[in-house]
Amino acid sequence: MTDRPPVAIIMGSQSDWETMKNAADTLEALEIPYDARIISAHRTVDRLVNFAKGARAEGFKVIIAGAGGAAHLPGMTAAMTPLPVFGVPVQSKTMSGQDSLLSIVQMPAGIPVGTLAIGKAGAVNAALLAAAVLALSDEEVADRLDEWRERQSAAVAEYPMDDL
Amino acid sequence: MTDRPPVAIIMGSQSDWETMKNAADTLEALEIPYDARIISAHRTVDRLVNFAKGARAEGFKVIIAGAGGAAHLPGMTAAMTPLPVFGVPVQSKTMSGQDSLLSIVQMPAGIPVGTLAIGKAGAVNAALLAAAVLALSDEEVADRLDEWRERQSAAVAEYPMDDL
Amino acid sequence: MTDRPPVAIIMGSQSDWETMKNAADTLEALEIPYDARIISAHRTVDRLVNFAKGARAEGFKVIIAGAGGAAHLPGMTAAMTPLPVFGVPVQSKTMSGQDSLLSIVQMPAGIPVGTLAIGKAGAVNAALLAAAVLALSDEEVADRLDEWRERQSAAVAEYPMDDL
Amino acid sequence: MTDRPPVAIIMGSQSDWETMKNAADTLEALEIPYDARIISAHRTVDRLVNFAKGARAEGFKVIIAGAGGAAHLPGMTAAMTPLPVFGVPVQSKTMSGQDSLLSIVQMPAGIPVGTLAIGKAGAVNAALLAAAVLALSDEEVADRLDEWRERQSAAVAEYPMDDL
Amino acid sequence: MTDRPPVAIIMGSQSDWETMKNAADTLEALEIPYDARIISAHRTVDRLVNFAKGARAEGFKVIIAGAGGAAHLPGMTAAMTPLPVFGVPVQSKTMSGQDSLLSIVQMPAGIPVGTLAIGKAGAVNAALLAAAVLALSDEEVADRLDEWRERQSAAVAEYPMDDL
Amino acid sequence: MTDRPPVAIIMGSQSDWETMKNAADTLEALEIPYDARIISAHRTVDRLVNFAKGARAEGFKVIIAGAGGAAHLPGMTAAMTPLPVFGVPVQSKTMSGQDSLLSIVQMPAGIPVGTLAIGKAGAVNAALLAAAVLALSDEEVADRLDEWRERQSAAVAEYPMDDL
Amino acid sequence: MTDRPPVAIIMGSQSDWETMKNAADTLEALEIPYDARIISAHRTVDRLVNFAKGARAEGFKVIIAGAGGAAHLPGMTAAMTPLPVFGVPVQSKTMSGQDSLLSIVQMPAGIPVGTLAIGKAGAVNAALLAAAVLALSDEEVADRLDEWRERQSAAVAEYPMDDL
Amino acid sequence: MTDRPPVAIIMGSQSDWETMKNAADTLEALEIPYDARIISAHRTVDRLVNFAKGARAEGFKVIIAGAGGAAHLPGMTAAMTPLPVFGVPVQSKTMSGQDSLLSIVQMPAGIPVGTLAIGKAGAVNAALLAAAVLALSDEEVADRLDEWRERQSAAVAEYPMDDL
Repeated sequence: MTDRPPVAIIMGSQSDWETMKNAADTLEALEIPYDARIISAHRTVDRLVNFAKGARAEGFKVIIAGAGGAAHLPGMTAAMTPLPVFGVPVQSKTMSGQDSLLSIVQMPAGIPVGTLAIGKAGAVNAALLAAAVLALSDEEVADRLDEWRERQSAAVAEYPMDDL
Repeated sequence: MTDRPPVAIIMGSQSDWETMKNAADTLEALEIPYDARIISAHRTVDRLVNFAKGARAEGFKVIIAGAGGAAHLPGMTAAMTPLPVFGVPVQSKTMSGQDSLLSIVQMPAGIPVGTLAIGKAGAVNAALLAAAVLALSDEEVADRLDEWRERQSAAVAEYPMDDL
Repeated sequence: MTDRPPVAIIMGSQSDWETMKNAADTLEALEIPYDARIISAHRTVDRLVNFAKGARAEGFKVIIAGAGGAAHLPGMTAAMTPLPVFGVPVQSKTMSGQDSLLSIVQMPAGIPVGTLAIGKAGAVNAALLAAAVLALSDEEVADRLDEWRERQSAAVAEYPMDDL
Repeated sequence: MTDRPPVAIIMGSQSDWETMKNAADTLEALEIPYDARIISAHRTVDRLVNFAKGARAEGFKVIIAGAGGAAHLPGMTAAMTPLPVFGVPVQSKTMSGQDSLLSIVQMPAGIPVGTLAIGKAGAVNAALLAAAVLALSDEEVADRLDEWRERQSAAVAEYPMDDL
Repeated sequence: MTDRPPVAIIMGSQSDWETMKNAADTLEALEIPYDARIISAHRTVDRLVNFAKGARAEGFKVIIAGAGGAAHLPGMTAAMTPLPVFGVPVQSKTMSGQDSLLSIVQMPAGIPVGTLAIGKAGAVNAALLAAAVLALSDEEVADRLDEWRERQSAAVAEYPMDDL
Repeated sequence: MTDRPPVAIIMGSQSDWETMKNAADTLEALEIPYDARIISAHRTVDRLVNFAKGARAEGFKVIIAGAGGAAHLPGMTAAMTPLPVFGVPVQSKTMSGQDSLLSIVQMPAGIPVGTLAIGKAGAVNAALLAAAVLALSDEEVADRLDEWRERQSAAVAEYPMDDL
Repeated sequence: MTDRPPVAIIMGSQSDWETMKNAADTLEALEIPYDARIISAHRTVDRLVNFAKGARAEGFKVIIAGAGGAAHLPGMTAAMTPLPVFGVPVQSKTMSGQDSLLSIVQMPAGIPVGTLAIGKAGAVNAALLAAAVLALSDEEVADRLDEWRERQSAAVAEYPMDDL
Repeated sequence: MTDRPPVAIIMGSQSDWETMKNAADTLEALEIPYDARIISAHRTVDRLVNFAKGARAEGFKVIIAGAGGAAHLPGMTAAMTPLPVFGVPVQSKTMSGQDSLLSIVQMPAGIPVGTLAIGKAGAVNAALLAAAVLALSDEEVADRLDEWRERQSAAVAEYPMDDL
């Protein structure tokens, strides 16, 4: 592995950061370095092309891409890199993220985007899925991911409580 | 007007032609020249970038873009050209074009795509809308469009018939 | 160009102005004059007929029409003018604008409405699309639109920030 | 009652007749005269205005209007007549009539359209609802409707049968 | 006409009154007497049967029925009376009234419910549609309805205003 | 247990039998007697009231009710009997059973309908759920249900086959 | 009946308790003992397997399972127990419980889950349905359920009131 | 890499093979060995638990899971293995795969499933995504994937053709 962070978190706008920060936080909990960048598929096409075409050479191994509405960022990134791309549908104002979800998940045969749930849950899970991929060739990540999952299971209370 | 056709009809794959041919036929009925090309936003990104960035210089005035599923072609084209882009959601197999529609119409503020109806009706109407735009600065197109609309109105029968 | 504003912004009711004002603001940023009027397809049919049939003669070149719910204003306007009509689905209370969107975009073959996104984004984009149409025959508008798009791209930060 | 048929069945195009004929057949079964006409809200606006504004003077008492897709005919008719208008959403190709339904039923406060089910069931029921309205001031229609409803109830078998 | 109010407004629960009160207010504006009752199709079946079977004999001419969720009240009422029944889908908490709408409008052939829009707009329009029906045999109601519609049209401002 | 069949299968019309027969076949495979009847909530209200109010006295223990579109049969039956009612949404022509599903499952608090999947799978599962209920107090049914479930599990092949 | 509570209320997480508490409260009103436990299908699979496989032996007769989003708890429980399982779709943040509903109700033939409405109404009704099942072999529960239903009917006011 | 195939393709039933075979064919084109197995989350829970808990030890690196309707297989597998799981929503009969999609993609935070498009496109893309993951630590797979993508791009014709 190079010195570069193995994971890139990209998002269509600053407003997506509220959601995508959950991916960053989860990666930090797993001690996996990442780069977070704003790349708008529509407003900064050149930035997108440069990033996506160069992502493998830059040393990235997994790309997490979040976007909302007519969300083209994950699919267009996947079109320009052989790296695995995981898409996070950001909850949109008018359609609750259903437009984001379909714009990301319904990719035609040939260019895959592994799509997670709408919103925060999807951002957390994109990080966990990236970790699962990195764990295949990194024992330390594998161990930390196992521990994270065990802690998660152990944290589930046996009985519901009224006073929360 | 240059000698170049003023309208480009682009589509994501050969299978979209069955739908988009209705746009071509409508332009022909209005004697408006066009170029029809396959440009996949996902499988031929460079072709897309070259086309979209050069479309104005090539002499095009209006772009009609049809695509299905996670349909990124219209929006990505609009991201790279100042020309008006009209999008046609091609009917998808699994979701009847609802994914196509949302992927095209729900563009974020800043990059517009004028979206038409799902399928054949949308393809015909994209051509008519392109004609309406060209008619603003081309009297002959304006006249032909007026006549086309009058013929359309005159063709509506007064009473429904059983034997059709 | 005549002395008349080239763009008409029409809307079904005063309550749509909150959304449609974004179209007006965008046109102002591009120094494109416009007329904004309330025309209810259902409550002021005569006003609609008079406006739509006379819009070309009045000197308008593009019509932006916003409406919500069973939104008939854009389509009915398009039925009575050869000018390009761009529709903005206003977000409805009970269905988040899905009814508005389908009522506007699913026009039958023959009468096109170029439809934008639901709500504010759609209103901004309707103005940008109108500008793109006007730019085809107005170098100054074309220049201002190019500059607007460049500024938009330049304004996208490279990295997300927590303190916003 | 005048000599004019009390019910008008109008539809947006010849292709809607396959559905709307079920309204006509039901009215015939109830011996209620009707006029069936094609009136396209989009392609024959003048015909629509003339019909709707003159419907009461023509002697009609109830209007049944069927249309599909961005179905504006029922609502626009209701905007121009004080007569009760009943709308039938015709099943559309791409969205199974969900666009037709929402375009008809989601009318804003002020202009009502009594909307029936999508497709054939809706056409039959529009006729029955028209009959219910006419029955309020026509004893013979009331009697025939009562008999029709009794026959309908009596025709329901007690047990399902395999060989049908 | 008997001394009984010609319109019954029924609703599934007290919580529907917030919506259905708009029907009552509209009838009052038109000086049309009405009875408003709570009749739960599920919790007070006998009350429903008694009301619906006796509604014509009680002197009612039109029934307005509002309900939410799996809204069975309008359809079950229509099953037991030959009077015209107009249904108002009350906006539900979890599905924004889409369940209410489909439960009311998608009646099978044989038992019609004229369905209005979800929520307040639908309640107002149910009253206007009832008035339109009563106006067929009551000149005074017809006149008041015409005036109401004219006032409504006259009240639409020509231009949108910022300070509202 | 009385001599009466413990399960009633009721459906809104003969056309629902194609779906509901799967419930009957499953009950037969489990050797559980049943009565199958057509009861239309809309066309045969009296039949519905008589059946539902008398079902417990007749000796039934579980009621399976299938209906489509604005499907009121399961909920109205549940309103008139304390017996457990399981609802099967029959696939509708125009909305693929989404209207049936919502009309059955979205019951208000107070009157429960245990709803199964749309169509054939739901009919089979309604029978299995009825069997699970009867098995609580009938060892033989419990044994047969256990065997049925074991056979079902054993019948799942280990590997997919091309030639089927 | 053993000394064990006959009803288990299980839920995917503490956050579901706000909804599922309504099932508990309803059972308490009917004096039916229950156990409430948190069992996450995804985070505590072993707990799920142990619970579901042992539920019958533990003395439970009915299982109420609530979960949200991709809600697998009810269906996976039903896969491992012959007891009747009733599922409650908890309202999700991004899709209002539509994902929860479909994930629970659309079970394949072979493994039934009797599904109730989304949210609080569904939780109350799951308890009532459990009571209806227990009432088949417990006269006291049957009596209390009858009384509960009578009180519910009696509590419906005749007329809506403004001051609530 | 061990001698075991790195990819497992699992599916809920034989009927899913028609869709999932496209994943197998794509892996074969990339010369990536795989195991294809039927594992029903509902009918063969023990098989699922054994497979999922043992998948990493068996030598698998990526799991592709396809299922339809209330599709629990991908999520439940992900709950029991740290390996990356990619889910394919199989098109369902009654809801066109929308239920499958939501049941797979809307996983809660903590257990990720990278979800692909509904149907064949999703199956092909699950294989390509698995290849992208394997390519991170296998140069030969990386080269073959690059070549596959290049061939795919080169195969896109420049112009649409009528005679296909």
